[in-house]
Amino acid sequence: MKLLRYYDGDSVYPGVLDAKGTLRALSSVVPDIDGAALTSGALDGVDVDALPIVQGEMRLAPCVGGVGKFLCIGLNYSDHAEEAGMPIPEHPILFLKANSAISGPHDDILLPRGSVATDWEVELGVVIGKTAKYVSEATALDHVAGYCVINDVSERDFQTKRTGQWTKGKSCDSFGPIGPWLVTKDEISDPQNLGLTCDVNGERMQTGSSDKMIFTIAQIIAHLSEMMTLHPGDVIATGTPPGVGMGMTPPKYLKPGDKVRLEIEGLGVQVQTVRADD
Amino acid sequence: MKLLRYYDGDSVYPGVLDAKGTLRALSSVVPDIDGAALTSGALDGVDVDALPIVQGEMRLAPCVGGVGKFLCIGLNYSDHAEEAGMPIPEHPILFLKANSAISGPHDDILLPRGSVATDWEVELGVVIGKTAKYVSEATALDHVAGYCVINDVSERDFQTKRTGQWTKGKSCDSFGPIGPWLVTKDEISDPQNLGLTCDVNGERMQTGSSDKMIFTIAQIIAHLSEMMTLHPGDVIATGTPPGVGMGMTPPKYLKPGDKVRLEIEGLGVQVQTVRADD
Repeated sequence: MKLLRYYDGDSVYPGVLDAKGTLRALSSVVPDIDGAALTSGALDGVDVDALPIVQGEMRLAPCVGGVGKFLCIGLNYSDHAEEAGMPIPEHPILFLKANSAISGPHDDILLPRGSVATDWEVELGVVIGKTAKYVSEATALDHVAGYCVINDVSERDFQTKRTGQWTKGKSCDSFGPIGPWLVTKDEISDPQNLGLTCDVNGERMQTGSSDKMIFTIAQIIAHLSEMMTLHPGDVIATGTPPGVGMGMTPPKYLKPGDKVRLEIEGLGVQVQTVRADD
Repeated sequence: MKLLRYYDGDSVYPGVLDAKGTLRALSSVVPDIDGAALTSGALDGVDVDALPIVQGEMRLAPCVGGVGKFLCIGLNYSDHAEEAGMPIPEHPILFLKANSAISGPHDDILLPRGSVATDWEVELGVVIGKTAKYVSEATALDHVAGYCVINDVSERDFQTKRTGQWTKGKSCDSFGPIGPWLVTKDEISDPQNLGLTCDVNGERMQTGSSDKMIFTIAQIIAHLSEMMTLHPGDVIATGTPPGVGMGMTPPKYLKPGDKVRLEIEGLGVQVQTVRADD
């Protein structure tokens, strides 16, 4: 299923795409697409074609609600690590994005005041569907609900020049578009073989495949679960392929009016417009 | 007011201490002590002595519910930076703890499997009560609801030897005791002049005063708000004074059965027992 959330006025509602790509309302089945819904089994065997069609063009919300933690893996593509001039890490590099950075897949990217180095990062997102603690690599994917596109928007000066940790450059408002859909894992035959692209103003910037991950999704989940419980509704961004603006000579960053388009095979397309934060 | 949350069975309820230290139920006023309650004004002018007394010995929950983000400042005491062998930072060092690390003030600290270097850090916690974005240092404290004790429990090997960022050592389950109380700011005449202590098994380990912060609470809030919106219910741990186990020769870390006691002037006492995670 392609699960999603959409805005209607100030409220967010759960929805699903049918086989023809028509938006259907899921409110009669679950109150939201969140950890509780993903773990409840309520979505199993839903007859999508029997659900009411949602009329009109709805703005999409982040495809997961009530995210507990937004975990991100850094430098997880060997060719991106090379581009960033960083050694291949020995373990998955973990950082957290603030949940307040989460935004809809087509919402504007806001350049924070003083930003001169805001960059794009298309990433394969993993949504946890079942609690995971001390799980093995062999069983790790049993804890996945599905996959989605994430733009791990990053302010490189905030990330690297404001001392120490990466968090500041990763957590600005609007720096975490998630969606358009949470594609349940039954629809993705091999998550380690998906093409990823990112275009800025129609120019191809990033091209990659999840077969180039240094640490697989299963390895990442097993590793993280050695340190903390992964809960249903937690989201993991699994790293970005080469082609970020920081790696260019000279570096190239986002400016107001730019259009960013991200796509992952089977997971859909995000399009964001960049503007200055007021 | 000394706002708190307590467990009764599997549920958490809001409460408040009266002038005699008796626990009173707040459920008739707010459904929880969270961002919505703190920003609503519903707690203003409550007649605490008219609230029903809660009978029995209740286990305390984290004093804030629905925390949006758990922001932490590293190396914010000049004497602790020296102890850690790190230079005085130019800006506040920010990292995030996973929200799933949050625990009650007297809940056990769980040593994760494989942990050999779990350490204590008494910290002055700040709870946001009003949305803050691009706020000045002069007005920053207007956005504070109150203060609390936080133990920023830290696994030093996970933090420093598992590559890159500090998150892994900071985000383990039970590594974020918050409470006992959220003390509203009207009760704290000068948050930059509070004594902090941490004892392990009755031995004094940390002694400090918040007047030794490199960046004041107002400076931290102003700085963070340049990058991200601070929302009601967000929590900021403002750094730890000297005396952590990592700084000792040889380093000293927590083991099962240890008792950790943290106190901040006017903000109460936390006591945790350490045990191995199953």
